[in-house]
Amino acid sequence: MASKREMALTYARDNRGRLIHDLFEFIRIPSVSADPDWNTLENAASWILQRLKAAGIQKTQIFQTDGPPIVYGEYQPVQSPICTVLLYGHYDVQPIDPLVEWVSPPFEPHIKGEELFGRGASDMKGQIIASIGAVEAILSQSNLPIAFKFLFEGEEEIGSPNLPRFLQEQRNLLGCDFALVPDTGMIAKDTPTITYGLRGLCCFELRVFGPKSDLHSGQYGGVVHNPAQALCELIAGMHDSEGRITLPGFYDRVLPISEDERKIWSELPQDDNGYKAQTGVKQLWGERGFSAAERVRVRPTLEVNGLLSGYTGNGMKTVIPACAMAKISMRLVPDQDPEDIKRQLIAYLEQQAPETIRWELEQMAGHPPSVVERWSPVIQSLAQALETVWYTAPVFEREGSSIPIVGMIKKYLGIESVMTGFSLPEDNIHAPNEKIHLPTWGRGIDALVHFFYNLVEKAV
Amino acid sequence: MASKREMALTYARDNRGRLIHDLFEFIRIPSVSADPDWNTLENAASWILQRLKAAGIQKTQIFQTDGPPIVYGEYQPVQSPICTVLLYGHYDVQPIDPLVEWVSPPFEPHIKGEELFGRGASDMKGQIIASIGAVEAILSQSNLPIAFKFLFEGEEEIGSPNLPRFLQEQRNLLGCDFALVPDTGMIAKDTPTITYGLRGLCCFELRVFGPKSDLHSGQYGGVVHNPAQALCELIAGMHDSEGRITLPGFYDRVLPISEDERKIWSELPQDDNGYKAQTGVKQLWGERGFSAAERVRVRPTLEVNGLLSGYTGNGMKTVIPACAMAKISMRLVPDQDPEDIKRQLIAYLEQQAPETIRWELEQMAGHPPSVVERWSPVIQSLAQALETVWYTAPVFEREGSSIPIVGMIKKYLGIESVMTGFSLPEDNIHAPNEKIHLPTWGRGIDALVHFFYNLVEKAV
Repeated sequence: MASKREMALTYARDNRGRLIHDLFEFIRIPSVSADPDWNTLENAASWILQRLKAAGIQKTQIFQTDGPPIVYGEYQPVQSPICTVLLYGHYDVQPIDPLVEWVSPPFEPHIKGEELFGRGASDMKGQIIASIGAVEAILSQSNLPIAFKFLFEGEEEIGSPNLPRFLQEQRNLLGCDFALVPDTGMIAKDTPTITYGLRGLCCFELRVFGPKSDLHSGQYGGVVHNPAQALCELIAGMHDSEGRITLPGFYDRVLPISEDERKIWSELPQDDNGYKAQTGVKQLWGERGFSAAERVRVRPTLEVNGLLSGYTGNGMKTVIPACAMAKISMRLVPDQDPEDIKRQLIAYLEQQAPETIRWELEQMAGHPPSVVERWSPVIQSLAQALETVWYTAPVFEREGSSIPIVGMIKKYLGIESVMTGFSLPEDNIHAPNEKIHLPTWGRGIDALVHFFYNLVEKAV
Repeated sequence: MASKREMALTYARDNRGRLIHDLFEFIRIPSVSADPDWNTLENAASWILQRLKAAGIQKTQIFQTDGPPIVYGEYQPVQSPICTVLLYGHYDVQPIDPLVEWVSPPFEPHIKGEELFGRGASDMKGQIIASIGAVEAILSQSNLPIAFKFLFEGEEEIGSPNLPRFLQEQRNLLGCDFALVPDTGMIAKDTPTITYGLRGLCCFELRVFGPKSDLHSGQYGGVVHNPAQALCELIAGMHDSEGRITLPGFYDRVLPISEDERKIWSELPQDDNGYKAQTGVKQLWGERGFSAAERVRVRPTLEVNGLLSGYTGNGMKTVIPACAMAKISMRLVPDQDPEDIKRQLIAYLEQQAPETIRWELEQMAGHPPSVVERWSPVIQSLAQALETVWYTAPVFEREGSSIPIVGMIKKYLGIESVMTGFSLPEDNIHAPNEKIHLPTWGRGIDALVHFFYNLVEKAV
């Protein structure tokens, strides 16, 4: 007779088609937290609340915040639980522009070959459905002494500004043994991955002002400092010729790379050619003295995310723009602090910006980097589950991305997070034609089922 | 009994209200040559054709080109003409963005105090109506032995790409003694101005390409060269710390400033404070070693007219953009040549662009600088007319702007141009809230009437 574990896995696999249907429905609800034109966030929150109910979660609740609602769910087993898992997800997604580059509409999911395309397929509506699917499979067997709590927010992609207050106010409700954050990815197909570190993030909008209105470049060219040029000069000065960031004090709190980590990353199935293939560039770029694998994991970066000034339509308009704008963000590593970075950027601008222009800086979001425990029994349960499904031990990874919840849960609840996920580097997250690889996603559901059974067996 | 000259002036003044009404009608026809959304250029061409007919111009014709139509008109006096004037105008206008900065809709003209607001009010629908109004006043007296030819094009603001071919094909039709180009301005209210030099223009769109699509800055920040950053680096390098342009060979053909011109400009009623007031900047900027008045007239410049890359909407999107674009234009001075400048820009990019990105350059327009005769009898007739109306001798000016027709008429027809006009520095041409100062515009009509009478009297 099949074990409960096997029955749960069979249940999950039998329901694979229904879960794909759910993912289609979920993707069809536009939930771009950054874009008022596409943010039916309440609909996405309601949908997920209903989906939790359908999965058998006894207690569900919507919490209003100053931003999008937070969806909470809780399942308590009949017997006393041996552990409580807080499962985190975000139901918001990235903006969809440049829309013209999408091969099919971003909110109209479709399957082509082994891939399911749509905004949020990987980040992270697909991962949410996988997680709920795994829990549903567990509950279908109704005997596992694990309590599940669910926390779904709708503003992760804009830095989770309202989450700290919610965590503080609801710290009793959210009490748990650990948080499961299935919002990371695998470093390569067939390489299951557990993430134990994340970079932090700091986002700014920098605006440079020149003349009081756009000027005719014939009448005034040579008289005023062009704000677009001044902005370019400021941005160009933010890196030196070695690819290092020049903000004063920027590297002061950056920890050195440990020897064991350096060794691990040098052995990853990821090399320069892999990065070139994924990105399509002929030559990589970055801070001298570090490998690409190190640069994306444990070195801070500064990126221009957007530029806008003057006339950008067809043809030409010979104007000196009145202003110029850049969106700039930094990825931070331990022990950098977002508040320090803001001060450093201001110091840079105060030192470098010429008297010929005026500037304004707005901070959009900021949260610190985080590193979590690598050797706990919970991590071992997850590692074993991943190995069972992929027939290979997982790699331990520090991701270059940022997930605000991880640092916040640590700070406000004192709780460690376990990070894993089943999106692949080629899944175009945050980009046009986002997708998820369905076979990998299916294995991910199996792995989560194993993980929950392993947790109980290890505890016994 | 009043002279014919006085009768013509009276006619022009009696019709001032009707001419303002005409200008309202003309402005209401959107004719932005650079913007497909606002380019009812055929309507503007038809309107002006009808207006010529109404003014008594016997022969009118529309010429189709590969761009907008060219409107031609011709009036031959009963007696044999002692001179033939080719009156030039462009019925296209500049784009209207940033639309939000317009206090009232750009194509809905209105009068406030002494100013008439609307796109094209100054540049140059107002000047066209003034010129036609002056000719109409002359014809109302039906005895002046001047032949008038009219040439109105619809793509001056995008560099007149189809005009050279038309001038070559119709050189017999366009035969004349001189061209009157009323597309320049006055250096200050109460300072009538004859323009004898113009800067040339070279426009480009520079596109920098990095990864094959937008990338997640967490996943790839530190691995690829951000194209927005690379573009900023390239632009920042185009000027040195002295405000000089670094394209190789850029200054090789720039002529030195003559002593008499330097003296004239140092005595103009225009100083740094005037430029500051007009532009609203606290501190001027430009090439070291030259006054602001010199820099805008006879020194070449390089401006960023537009920047676009990545995410520019509300909030943040932590993306490494796949590409970045800048619109860049240079104002040229004698003897710089647009073809040289293109080669110099390409040479700069080939030397400076790193291997980590790919770039593309598209030339949008280019035409050479020009300087015309300062001491001809025609110019003296105009100078005298301006002095009659303003009670002060005109200043002789070299404008920083560019009017492609002037160099082209010289090149293809061998004809000199006479440049004047009645727009003021504060008229916001090429900018939001373009306007014309009605008292100055009215005096301009009077001055043109005097000019035509002077021409005949000087010839007699």
